Amino acid sequence: MTMQHFDSDYMEGAHPRILQKLMKTNLDKMPGYGSDDCCRSAKEKIRAACGCPQAQVYFLVGGTQTNMVVIKALLRPYEGVISAETGHIQVHEAGAVESTGHKILTLPQYQGKIRAEDLERYVSAFYADANHEHMVQPGMVYISHPTEYGDLYTKGELEGISTVCKRYHLPLFLDGARLGYGLMARDTDVTLETIAKTCDVFYIGGTKVGALFGEAVVITRPEGIPHFFTTVKQQGALLAKGWLLGVQFDTLFTDNLYFQISRHAIDMAEKLKAGLKAKGYRLLYDSPTNQQFVILENGMMEALSQKVSFSFWENYDPQHTVVRFATSWATREEDIDALLQLM
Amino acid sequence: MTMQHFDSDYMEGAHPRILQKLMKTNLDKMPGYGSDDCCRSAKEKIRAACGCPQAQVYFLVGGTQTNMVVIKALLRPYEGVISAETGHIQVHEAGAVESTGHKILTLPQYQGKIRAEDLERYVSAFYADANHEHMVQPGMVYISHPTEYGDLYTKGELEGISTVCKRYHLPLFLDGARLGYGLMARDTDVTLETIAKTCDVFYIGGTKVGALFGEAVVITRPEGIPHFFTTVKQQGALLAKGWLLGVQFDTLFTDNLYFQISRHAIDMAEKLKAGLKAKGYRLLYDSPTNQQFVILENGMMEALSQKVSFSFWENYDPQHTVVRFATSWATREEDIDALLQLM
Amino acid sequence: MTMQHFDSDYMEGAHPRILQKLMKTNLDKMPGYGSDDCCRSAKEKIRAACGCPQAQVYFLVGGTQTNMVVIKALLRPYEGVISAETGHIQVHEAGAVESTGHKILTLPQYQGKIRAEDLERYVSAFYADANHEHMVQPGMVYISHPTEYGDLYTKGELEGISTVCKRYHLPLFLDGARLGYGLMARDTDVTLETIAKTCDVFYIGGTKVGALFGEAVVITRPEGIPHFFTTVKQQGALLAKGWLLGVQFDTLFTDNLYFQISRHAIDMAEKLKAGLKAKGYRLLYDSPTNQQFVILENGMMEALSQKVSFSFWENYDPQHTVVRFATSWATREEDIDALLQLM
Amino acid sequence: MTMQHFDSDYMEGAHPRILQKLMKTNLDKMPGYGSDDCCRSAKEKIRAACGCPQAQVYFLVGGTQTNMVVIKALLRPYEGVISAETGHIQVHEAGAVESTGHKILTLPQYQGKIRAEDLERYVSAFYADANHEHMVQPGMVYISHPTEYGDLYTKGELEGISTVCKRYHLPLFLDGARLGYGLMARDTDVTLETIAKTCDVFYIGGTKVGALFGEAVVITRPEGIPHFFTTVKQQGALLAKGWLLGVQFDTLFTDNLYFQISRHAIDMAEKLKAGLKAKGYRLLYDSPTNQQFVILENGMMEALSQKVSFSFWENYDPQHTVVRFATSWATREEDIDALLQLM
Repeated sequence: MTMQHFDSDYMEGAHPRILQKLMKTNLDKMPGYGSDDCCRSAKEKIRAACGCPQAQVYFLVGGTQTNMVVIKALLRPYEGVISAETGHIQVHEAGAVESTGHKILTLPQYQGKIRAEDLERYVSAFYADANHEHMVQPGMVYISHPTEYGDLYTKGELEGISTVCKRYHLPLFLDGARLGYGLMARDTDVTLETIAKTCDVFYIGGTKVGALFGEAVVITRPEGIPHFFTTVKQQGALLAKGWLLGVQFDTLFTDNLYFQISRHAIDMAEKLKAGLKAKGYRLLYDSPTNQQFVILENGMMEALSQKVSFSFWENYDPQHTVVRFATSWATREEDIDALLQLM
Repeated sequence: MTMQHFDSDYMEGAHPRILQKLMKTNLDKMPGYGSDDCCRSAKEKIRAACGCPQAQVYFLVGGTQTNMVVIKALLRPYEGVISAETGHIQVHEAGAVESTGHKILTLPQYQGKIRAEDLERYVSAFYADANHEHMVQPGMVYISHPTEYGDLYTKGELEGISTVCKRYHLPLFLDGARLGYGLMARDTDVTLETIAKTCDVFYIGGTKVGALFGEAVVITRPEGIPHFFTTVKQQGALLAKGWLLGVQFDTLFTDNLYFQISRHAIDMAEKLKAGLKAKGYRLLYDSPTNQQFVILENGMMEALSQKVSFSFWENYDPQHTVVRFATSWATREEDIDALLQLM
Repeated sequence: MTMQHFDSDYMEGAHPRILQKLMKTNLDKMPGYGSDDCCRSAKEKIRAACGCPQAQVYFLVGGTQTNMVVIKALLRPYEGVISAETGHIQVHEAGAVESTGHKILTLPQYQGKIRAEDLERYVSAFYADANHEHMVQPGMVYISHPTEYGDLYTKGELEGISTVCKRYHLPLFLDGARLGYGLMARDTDVTLETIAKTCDVFYIGGTKVGALFGEAVVITRPEGIPHFFTTVKQQGALLAKGWLLGVQFDTLFTDNLYFQISRHAIDMAEKLKAGLKAKGYRLLYDSPTNQQFVILENGMMEALSQKVSFSFWENYDPQHTVVRFATSWATREEDIDALLQLM
Repeated sequence: MTMQHFDSDYMEGAHPRILQKLMKTNLDKMPGYGSDDCCRSAKEKIRAACGCPQAQVYFLVGGTQTNMVVIKALLRPYEGVISAETGHIQVHEAGAVESTGHKILTLPQYQGKIRAEDLERYVSAFYADANHEHMVQPGMVYISHPTEYGDLYTKGELEGISTVCKRYHLPLFLDGARLGYGLMARDTDVTLETIAKTCDVFYIGGTKVGALFGEAVVITRPEGIPHFFTTVKQQGALLAKGWLLGVQFDTLFTDNLYFQISRHAIDMAEKLKAGLKAKGYRLLYDSPTNQQFVILENGMMEALSQKVSFSFWENYDPQHTVVRFATSWATREEDIDALLQLM
């Protein structure tokens, strides 16, 4: 029996329709840097899907890159970005934000989420502090949806955070590296429109959701971000053959492909979750998205790792470990069956 | 008659063999961040092609990104990078190097090349200046081959620059965004081995030479660059699906594909050059590579631009303009014929 | 009755002997940037006081400046600095460290101190993490002595931290903005020699201990920090009339002045502490240095603030507040008497 | 006969009135960071002297520091600062501006000055360049008055530059490290009011004009620079005992002291210039300020350097060298006599 792979949601290339489109357009002569018709078309479709006709859309290559470019573009030198203490930018981006000169100001996290009341408390305490001009001024808020723990904000929670942000003139930026898997979760009341209404900037992840690579940055503020293109270039984030991103997102936003393949990943995750529960496994929490966190006894984990690859997540107690299984648009039903059989 | 396009050498996707390989491996499960077998194989082939078994090889996505990451990784805070005043990093990268905190120290250029004697003069004058500790210390040298003007260093020139660099302990970094087109030029005595012997770091351009995207950074110093991986990540330059780069470079360095397609672009450029000369056109200089610079009378240029797209290069005199025609691996012989017919 | 001032330890100018020396040398012609004889003499005296003849000594103007310059000079781009979560660099320097591109990695604090075992745990967990190359690498350790809470490390604690640092090749940097007040505390077993032996870099604070301004950076590593002078200049931290710093530190390290005036501040703080205890006040903890932290009932605090200025420190509980009283080299015995009378 | 010193204009401490004031206020309890009454008074006097009641005034310690803080505060990430190729920021600040992430865009210089027409040409060419979004956008203009060559703008020239700046929304920043010596030059038509009217930000140099140290930044834009205080702190440029700067500038702007002592330095320079001319020396050009540039035959220069210290400026031809003699507020008439006698 071959090894089963559930390490992450970016272990395959692209959805076949994307590759076909890349094949078909491969020798067409295209102008560079995203000024082509594929990008134009993809942007139009994304604006429509967001219900946000005034949005500016840019395509970047990867998640860390997108986070650092957007944050650099939004902040003034004396400002920092507020994030959950488990935020991807805080933990797993090798100091990318700090390399642009900005501090990350951390809030407590609840399955990776921050709470509007913690945010309110932090910012009001900052302004109440007599020494606040000696401190990094909160300049924006970063959240991820789904979070690094696979959890989701409710519409009400997003609106609550957005309200605090507006009160203090803090742009709200949402990291949607796995956005499709959040939007297609069962029971969520958050849609693309919700996000476009509550956030100033967000991105629609492609790398983990059907594309070879690529993230679509959506700027919903009517004034946009001045000279964002040049900031992208300056960070080495401008793809010469920009149409490669346009082709991919145009395909993803044609005939609802992005949502369909996201839904599939959720179906696979739900099947896995149900199977695990049926077998008596303990889950870290009831994750609604494509990342499932299972508490395994260490010896059992060791044995399983010979047959299945998964991610170490964190130590649970001296005898147990939390591990992560990720499904994706490319997970097949028989992969889940095989995994469940092994466990 | 349809428009002819000679604007740049990155107007098409990838060589068909690359797309086929991407199709074939598309649903294989691959580990992320370049730790896969395709990357391993590609690195091995590149080391062999360079005659440099100890080299470390990394794959990045684009040229500006590669320049800024390498320069940041090589310099200490008090150091700057020496470049021709026309260097890509100085003119067309939106301040990427400065955004990492480093100054670019410029030398005069000769068709985009610097001269060993100018370098020697600059560095020795620096150390002779009583105030040099108040000034940015030269910390490395950046050259491009071919240059932004399409010109090539000779082996002797590279060795001359390398000798000065070694004397002053300055790492030499070569931007090879169009390296294939330089190596396959007629009459050049510079090979990949020459470059690996004279440079501390260089990159083999893929974006402009057959790949969808990608640059292969080769570090020839036995000690490598410490924690280069983390610096790559920090700059947002780490591709999650790193194998996409491995697949491309593995294909390019199988059966000499990189060199064959580069040779083809040179053949097309030479055919164009001969045709233009035969028709009495004046060239800015006798460019040996895939970029050809033609001096056009302004009215003629205007008329031509209705039928052919090309790049504005610089004003020559009030009545004339220098324009650039670029061939590439994807240029067809009939495209050159069509262009020559139009001129 | 006039207002009593105990807000901070930098409310007066300089010790009179310093001003006299500045008067006396005022019209002497001096070469700039610290290349004068006063600086030379001061450095020699500091090296002697530290028992570290190979030390390199530099004079900077202020504390935040010194922290950012030293940290920038010690770290490579992929590294961060470990600090207590209450470290001055983390909280009250407006993001100065991050503005140089580096992340601060925080440890739990105990009256502002970090513990060797927490440090060991953090660093070993970092290297055990399979993803650590995606994370900011610990590159040095920052401690303050006295801490922001006025507390002191013991010799054993410093040695413990130093041992962990050496194991992981982490330079240890000690912020001595109030160093004199730490060295002259009663019962401490830490001397300048202890610090020179355990730390790679530290600074002897002048601004808060008798000087108009100035911090003396002592680099104990035999290889120094390469081109530190240029890094100082680059950060705008090089004083043109560098001898102003030399004159001040030369005076402070003549006839033990630095230690005598520090001892005086401690005497005043001990007198205050004893007086407060005698009056039944609760102290946050038994601070051994010139900063004393008192828990006041809020109404009482309000009333007292009409007659005495002090610093708000933190909320203790809804009815009580912690406030700080700072003595300094300039505090007079009658000031303490007056304060105690008011309380 | 003792050595004569004409190396620079910052070889002495402070004007005696300043030292007296520092003595007098030495033990007064002052609040920190510039929130004291001396600073308030000094700012008021400076606003009055500039005829600019809405100006915001900040005091910083040194010139490089001021340049980098102001430039960082004015620019957005995608912008650079335009400067003469001989600008202090470009040549002698160890890359301070680049260390904040910004490129310096250079213009030709004429005795250190830039010309409005060159500026207009540069900026209009930038916007005419089809690739300008791939390039660093001009974001502000830096000039110095007097220039590094001791030369002065006329009122008309300043207005010309200011007009171009306004046309392109480029803040104009004037480095006035030697401003007093410019304002008191004979025949200049530029006053403090002229500068306040034409510049968005400028600074009045203290370090070279009577103070121990200190530069007064004047922001004439009614909206100021947001959170400039925090940016100052972040760059390590905030002096804890800010009143030391207030005391100095308050004294300098009382009873016209700043102007009187500047006038004296000009008188000394004019006396020197006349003496040199009378003795047949060739001057590099007819400098109107306190820096005089003399062309010396190399053997003569060598001999003179045994008795007088001066600055090497630049090689004139193989047989001759340009050297600089600087007068200051502290130069005595007998020093000039002694120098002339030696030459």
